[in-house]
Amino acid sequence: MFDHIFSFVDILAQHGISHAVISPGSRNAPLSLAFSRHSSITTSTIADERTAGFTALGMAEQLDKPVILVCTSGSAAYNYAPAVAEAYFRRIPLIIMTADRPPEWIDQLDGQTIRQKDIFGKHVKASFTLPDDFDHSDKVWHAQRIINQAALISEGEVKGPVHINCPFREPFYPAKDWKPKNLPIQVIDSVENTGNLSDEYLTELKGRFVTAEQVVILIGQNQYDEELNKVLSILSRKKVVIIGDVVSNISVKDSIKHQDLFLGALSENGKKVLKPDLLITFGLSIISKNLKLFLRSFKANEHWHIDRSESIVDTFQSLNLHIKASPLLFLKWLASIEKNVNTKYLESWKEQDDITNQVLSEFRKQNQLNELVATGIILEKLNDCDVYLANSMAIRWANFYNTLHQNVRVFCNRGTSGIDGCTSTALGGASISGKPTVLITGDVAFFYDRNAFWQNHIPENLKIVLFNNSGGGIFRMIKGPRDQEELEDVFESTHNLTAKYLADEYGLDYRSINSVNALKEEFTEWVNSTKSAGIMEIFTDKEDNRKSLEELKSTVQSTLLTQ
Amino acid sequence: MFDHIFSFVDILAQHGISHAVISPGSRNAPLSLAFSRHSSITTSTIADERTAGFTALGMAEQLDKPVILVCTSGSAAYNYAPAVAEAYFRRIPLIIMTADRPPEWIDQLDGQTIRQKDIFGKHVKASFTLPDDFDHSDKVWHAQRIINQAALISEGEVKGPVHINCPFREPFYPAKDWKPKNLPIQVIDSVENTGNLSDEYLTELKGRFVTAEQVVILIGQNQYDEELNKVLSILSRKKVVIIGDVVSNISVKDSIKHQDLFLGALSENGKKVLKPDLLITFGLSIISKNLKLFLRSFKANEHWHIDRSESIVDTFQSLNLHIKASPLLFLKWLASIEKNVNTKYLESWKEQDDITNQVLSEFRKQNQLNELVATGIILEKLNDCDVYLANSMAIRWANFYNTLHQNVRVFCNRGTSGIDGCTSTALGGASISGKPTVLITGDVAFFYDRNAFWQNHIPENLKIVLFNNSGGGIFRMIKGPRDQEELEDVFESTHNLTAKYLADEYGLDYRSINSVNALKEEFTEWVNSTKSAGIMEIFTDKEDNRKSLEELKSTVQSTLLTQ
Repeated sequence: MFDHIFSFVDILAQHGISHAVISPGSRNAPLSLAFSRHSSITTSTIADERTAGFTALGMAEQLDKPVILVCTSGSAAYNYAPAVAEAYFRRIPLIIMTADRPPEWIDQLDGQTIRQKDIFGKHVKASFTLPDDFDHSDKVWHAQRIINQAALISEGEVKGPVHINCPFREPFYPAKDWKPKNLPIQVIDSVENTGNLSDEYLTELKGRFVTAEQVVILIGQNQYDEELNKVLSILSRKKVVIIGDVVSNISVKDSIKHQDLFLGALSENGKKVLKPDLLITFGLSIISKNLKLFLRSFKANEHWHIDRSESIVDTFQSLNLHIKASPLLFLKWLASIEKNVNTKYLESWKEQDDITNQVLSEFRKQNQLNELVATGIILEKLNDCDVYLANSMAIRWANFYNTLHQNVRVFCNRGTSGIDGCTSTALGGASISGKPTVLITGDVAFFYDRNAFWQNHIPENLKIVLFNNSGGGIFRMIKGPRDQEELEDVFESTHNLTAKYLADEYGLDYRSINSVNALKEEFTEWVNSTKSAGIMEIFTDKEDNRKSLEELKSTVQSTLLTQ
Repeated sequence: MFDHIFSFVDILAQHGISHAVISPGSRNAPLSLAFSRHSSITTSTIADERTAGFTALGMAEQLDKPVILVCTSGSAAYNYAPAVAEAYFRRIPLIIMTADRPPEWIDQLDGQTIRQKDIFGKHVKASFTLPDDFDHSDKVWHAQRIINQAALISEGEVKGPVHINCPFREPFYPAKDWKPKNLPIQVIDSVENTGNLSDEYLTELKGRFVTAEQVVILIGQNQYDEELNKVLSILSRKKVVIIGDVVSNISVKDSIKHQDLFLGALSENGKKVLKPDLLITFGLSIISKNLKLFLRSFKANEHWHIDRSESIVDTFQSLNLHIKASPLLFLKWLASIEKNVNTKYLESWKEQDDITNQVLSEFRKQNQLNELVATGIILEKLNDCDVYLANSMAIRWANFYNTLHQNVRVFCNRGTSGIDGCTSTALGGASISGKPTVLITGDVAFFYDRNAFWQNHIPENLKIVLFNNSGGGIFRMIKGPRDQEELEDVFESTHNLTAKYLADEYGLDYRSINSVNALKEEFTEWVNSTKSAGIMEIFTDKEDNRKSLEELKSTVQSTLLTQ
């Protein structure tokens, strides 16, 4: 534990923090020692925490930098409260580190134990609780991120106090001859709005971009934006690798689209080649699980995340720069920079992507009606419309293909990835846009949200493709539930419902599809029909769907190996 | 009530909100009717709130504007929760208006009553509760501000859902022939970072600035900033009236300084002349109570507040534009604009200010040692140092004078205006700056925070002027407590303490002052002595202090009248 705590103090020092005010106590001893022994931090010792709080505030006001407060567990923290409130309303940066008992000892009538979590209520900009041990590497990452977040938030656009509650178990004192190990630390920096940056900093950022040979720009869920596509295209011509999921709404000639499939199939050596020097990300959540796993294993040397929010998001456990700016403006600046190209890196990505695309094209031509084939056919036929993808399988099928006409906008509830309102959302969207709107959904999401139709006006431009496999087919795709004997009963909840009755009840156009040919023949005419909203129910077999996905994955794998 | 609710809907419409999704219910009927009857709002009715939530989300995503959700009280609100969480993580703007029982009926086992306040937890950007009646004009202001805040926050730099809980008492339905009265409404707009604004908007803002004849820039508590002073000086030369308290740290030749005194003395007609067309504010809290009262009575036609925070602050109940930007950058832009001057307006302010300044100069020359006179002498002698002012009387005495050498920086805990940490704060500040530092404090603040000295190093550059009047003299200045028979016992808490013992205990230089001459002779040498921290205790009489303030006020009043 001591090594970790010393490393946290080192992170704070690297954020330019130079002063800590310590109130003596035993449970906070690890912190007191770590601050006292750090070569670039000056500590003061003040017994009365109320005094300590205001003294730190006076220091922080002069320094215009956060000052650290350290106290023991129990009522000590409450004595900081008046200074914390003053700091909050005066926007003075403080980082308050309160030692605490571990969670199992709260409310057990042990001494010096109160309820310290969120103790400063709404008078801090943020409050965190450190993990109570650092045995798993994710906990170390979490703790280091908390320390970084506290430093960045206390010094944000509007400054203020931040609380870190620190549950410690004994021992609180290291052995006499103990020396810290200097564990590796992750320091996350933050810059705001390139327009506000100093020339020196811009030059440095530019230098880091220019010298990186293998650059990836990865886009999470994002709204369709033509101007953004233009800027990304410029960067792509500079051989920057552009990667997006189907919900990224990007349309760039050489972008990478099938990362989920080929990264799931590649060997470790094959992946190594694709490791970025510099990873630049923006947008919200990422769908491709294999991409996430890849970027967490083969961490970029540098990771910049661009987001107008102050919150620190480190999806790949590799972040070192949070750029608080509009992604479009930042990328425009990046695109204006002359950069040496590394053609080979982009080619390595493209090669895998092209092979996978070829495999997918063959699958799309199959004649057996399953969800993989049907999704391929449908996506190819979509043109100048909005497509809403339901959770959970529909969005995945679509993301495997990830090729759409550039005039098709993609929507999906990936904020919480719930199945609860996919139809209602599409309906609300279609009622505003007036454009042809296709919802691709599965039977569980569809029947869950059947009350979506219980409203006076169902927009006639809404067409629903319903994959009905009589239950939650997704559970069959996942190794965990697939291997349980309760698969059908407890997970898939198999049923015999059809949307026909619902269509009749609400006066919707209904057709059921039983063959690939029927789908190909009817789809385009159906989407563009203006007479009423409609449901196209495609009956598939759960086991067929599973097999086709397995087959796709193994074909991708064997093709990649033989090339 | 119906008039008010209709006016709230009108405010939302003026924010460009065009769609509301209503779920039927009785308690929310006033809202349902107000939205339905508004000419520029389209409403949809959806019975199932879960469906309603997601439908609104789909609409908002397409519109890129907040959509309103309206439901009745009870569990209805919980059915919005899945859509609210999705909106939060996807940054989609929604304004959720949940009707509720008034507070006295919560937890009384009445039907359709749950605990709705903050029901969406951390999955909304903000949550508000409307007042439960609109009988006091402040409640109307509060309610309208909430509506404005909800619209602005949901559409902020990062968008998202905002909750307004709406407690309504019966009746819920207006009479059949009822028509809304069109109450006056306050619409608060918000713009971000002038650098990001469209040319049209900048031209409009510029126009509003140029055509305003009577412009006031008022600065709340603010850090000392030379560049800011330069920009304010340019604006002052354009005859913009610059007003600041002593904690504003501004140093501009023609700025107004004695507003608290002369605005307390002027007649209604005298004040009328000073009413601004355009009021521009920035910084934190304002000390001058009479200035606050004046600006609340004689409201500016337009009020712009500049603040990098997203929160809406309407100190004078007149705000119509929140400018989310750096005050310095915004004022630089303003200073670059050619503007017709109205010399007469600035002259009107200056005239009052100069007369008051003259009166103060005479008071400063008095030979009787009281806090008013002593503060005047001390402030005049301060040079190239930091001054910390304690709450509550010390800051007030200093604010009456509000004239300091421009190399003196002023600090004061006006975030919460507590007496609890004034000495500790000054001590922390002095330990960092190393500059001569003077704390001016009263006996209650001083003894309250006596543990400030219980630390290893008390910076020798800290000099404390302690006005000891043996109790909380401020209560004697205020009409309320002054008239109570418990004044001395319950409010002033009279004591016989002196700082001498404390000085001995901590080894501080100590001297007591009993005459104006002694103060004048010793002060400068004492401040600059480097041997140790010191306390200069000035014994005064509460009643003398009160009388001198009364005399000052009446002299200002009579002088203003005769000029």
